Amino acid sequence: METLELAPIIMMLLVIFVVARVFSAVVERFGLPGLIGEIVAGILIANLAIGGDTLLDLLGIVIENPSTSTEGNDLYSILYTFSEIGVIFLLFTVGLETRVKDLLGSGKTAMLVAVVGVIVPFFLGFAFIQVTEGNFHHAMFLGAAMVATSVGITARVIKDMHLMNKKESRIIISAAVIDDVLGMVVLAIVKGMAGTSGGIDPVGLIIVIAEAIIFVIGMILAAKYLVPLLIGYWNKSNAGREKPRKAPSPLALALIVCFFFAWLAEEIGLAAIIGSFLGGMLFSEYAEETGLNGKFDTLTTMFISFFFVMVGLKVDASALGSTTVIIDIVIVLVLAVVSKYVGCGLGAKIGDKGLGKDSLGIIGIGMVPRGEVGIIVASIGLSIVVDGAPALSAELYSVIVIMAVATTIIAPPLLSRAYKKRYPNGPEDDTVIME
Amino acid sequence: METLELAPIIMMLLVIFVVARVFSAVVERFGLPGLIGEIVAGILIANLAIGGDTLLDLLGIVIENPSTSTEGNDLYSILYTFSEIGVIFLLFTVGLETRVKDLLGSGKTAMLVAVVGVIVPFFLGFAFIQVTEGNFHHAMFLGAAMVATSVGITARVIKDMHLMNKKESRIIISAAVIDDVLGMVVLAIVKGMAGTSGGIDPVGLIIVIAEAIIFVIGMILAAKYLVPLLIGYWNKSNAGREKPRKAPSPLALALIVCFFFAWLAEEIGLAAIIGSFLGGMLFSEYAEETGLNGKFDTLTTMFISFFFVMVGLKVDASALGSTTVIIDIVIVLVLAVVSKYVGCGLGAKIGDKGLGKDSLGIIGIGMVPRGEVGIIVASIGLSIVVDGAPALSAELYSVIVIMAVATTIIAPPLLSRAYKKRYPNGPEDDTVIME
Repeated sequence: METLELAPIIMMLLVIFVVARVFSAVVERFGLPGLIGEIVAGILIANLAIGGDTLLDLLGIVIENPSTSTEGNDLYSILYTFSEIGVIFLLFTVGLETRVKDLLGSGKTAMLVAVVGVIVPFFLGFAFIQVTEGNFHHAMFLGAAMVATSVGITARVIKDMHLMNKKESRIIISAAVIDDVLGMVVLAIVKGMAGTSGGIDPVGLIIVIAEAIIFVIGMILAAKYLVPLLIGYWNKSNAGREKPRKAPSPLALALIVCFFFAWLAEEIGLAAIIGSFLGGMLFSEYAEETGLNGKFDTLTTMFISFFFVMVGLKVDASALGSTTVIIDIVIVLVLAVVSKYVGCGLGAKIGDKGLGKDSLGIIGIGMVPRGEVGIIVASIGLSIVVDGAPALSAELYSVIVIMAVATTIIAPPLLSRAYKKRYPNGPEDDTVIME
Repeated sequence: METLELAPIIMMLLVIFVVARVFSAVVERFGLPGLIGEIVAGILIANLAIGGDTLLDLLGIVIENPSTSTEGNDLYSILYTFSEIGVIFLLFTVGLETRVKDLLGSGKTAMLVAVVGVIVPFFLGFAFIQVTEGNFHHAMFLGAAMVATSVGITARVIKDMHLMNKKESRIIISAAVIDDVLGMVVLAIVKGMAGTSGGIDPVGLIIVIAEAIIFVIGMILAAKYLVPLLIGYWNKSNAGREKPRKAPSPLALALIVCFFFAWLAEEIGLAAIIGSFLGGMLFSEYAEETGLNGKFDTLTTMFISFFFVMVGLKVDASALGSTTVIIDIVIVLVLAVVSKYVGCGLGAKIGDKGLGKDSLGIIGIGMVPRGEVGIIVASIGLSIVVDGAPALSAELYSVIVIMAVATTIIAPPLLSRAYKKRYPNGPEDDTVIME
């Protein structure tokens, strides 16, 4: 235990934040999401040596166990906490935008796009590792990382083209929301199974799956019934009073709920982000009126850069030179793109026979970007130790990070082309193309 | 170095936050500022044993060196960082509200109220310890802690009485702003002197004082001239472009400035809060339009409770039973009230001969609350080691915390009475009472 000194702590936070924001701003100039720049910043901070020292060394950050990154000095503990809180807040913010009403009310097509679009990538990812490498946990985590769509980038393309009110756009957005929830269920199961070390026993497996499903369904029901009930009760009991009781600060309440469910999920062997995501969902109907959206955006801005830098810190740059890793990257990337394209297209076709080939193409491509969620799943895999080794190998972790980044870069131009083919005249185009 | 686990970290943050907010809400019911509740929460967390363990023990927080509180386990390092960032953000927020234009334009009376109201408490506090105990650094830190007025509580009383547009109110608010800046100068000097261990050498002393004054004046000049110049340059260079460059996010920019000046101030031997306060001042003209006020309020809400809990954690509850400490508390409290009352009243009298006795009374009482700033100064004193011992003794630290809390409790009812005497008919009362 070192003596705590404030100056090095602030210096570390300052330098990492500045480097992350600069790289983020640079990649945003090219129309890419800032997180890609922040991951690159992390890779450079850990690997680029200036006069023999990396920036990590210069800042005084010591990472004891680079393979799992779960041990280090005080500065590292602080950085770790900031990065984890960042991702917890990020998922809470996603939860705030996930209205249970919309979730349950999304059409059959969106539901099928999400479900088939989760099943196909999971099994392709799982099968690839199970067949080639044979490590069950690695296979499960790759499968889980292949699942979750990051709709942010797709939504921005659609918004920029002013095509938000088209049928395909609405299906993509609804499907992505369901996809988030399904992704959480898959992550919960995979992480829970990794927690039961040694051989997988069927009873333990059933308990973990049941726990994950009950947690998710319980929170959805709580958001739909319990929260409105509590608010109704509060308003009613206040209405009778001369001097109404002061309502608790929504921000403080949301922070407490966020931390509580993050802790609970982590404690029962799911993942903290699952809890914070579902916790955010509890507030989704009230996020606008209480200003919680903006407030959690502020908190996320403060913390999230540390998460993506940390993602980059853990990428093993030396491994990226090896031929096997490069081959893995190519295969995983192809599987990631093809599985979502085919899976979501297939789901859409089953759900709505009337959708033409161009529409199916739009939906398939729109669901391709993995972005942050795939990365988050990978970093959870890296941090869990099963039978003395991380549940995800360092190589596969790097492969997933690059796959997630690459899908995010590939998708926008393809999506934009697919939309232009379907709607040659832009937003005014309402011609229905039949085949 | 322990293996990092997320669940205990979140648990610690959750429990401390919840306890702090509950106690804060309770004291606010009694019209007192929430920070008092949070300090009490901290005292209980550290001292109240449930079945042999305090809450601190149950959460797994280990503080290695309780007298200075600068060593502990990973959880403690994280808590320490959160509390320090909390107070850095708090002072940045105060800086955001300190407009240089108003500061330099405040009248002669406000200036004299502030200056005399800083000199008298400092010397009374200094003299008391120098005479009784003879420890120079203890004396300096008590003096510095006696200096800074916490105007928040006074402003709330005035607002509640709808008397903000009265002459006395305007003098108090302006004087409190100048008082903040002077308080920072005094703290900078005191902390700088504590940094030069051993006997005080006159050259070192002059350098420290010069450094503090140059830093403060430099930042005031930067806020007045440099910032408008930079913004003008940005707007001008953008005006000529077809596609204007994207402005950096004000929040990210403010965070960088906040951390940079906090680090700089700490590094050159002043205090981090001085840097963040002055950094906030750079944005004060633009805080409203960029929404930085609200955003830093959100960040402060997230972090500041950890600071006040930490203040309570360090209060040595066992020492509070000793007779000498109780006598010290009474003396320091009397000195704190009398010195501000007399000092500010005197300053007002010199500045504006026309002010009646009742008006002088209002101004004197309005400047009495010390609140957070006195406490911050004390906790800095506790954390600095000079010649192997903290620059402020644990007993004197506890005395200052209680003095600061007590002045905050005493002032509002007295102020409200003083206002009622001067303006018996409330806001409509414009009768000028001459003597």
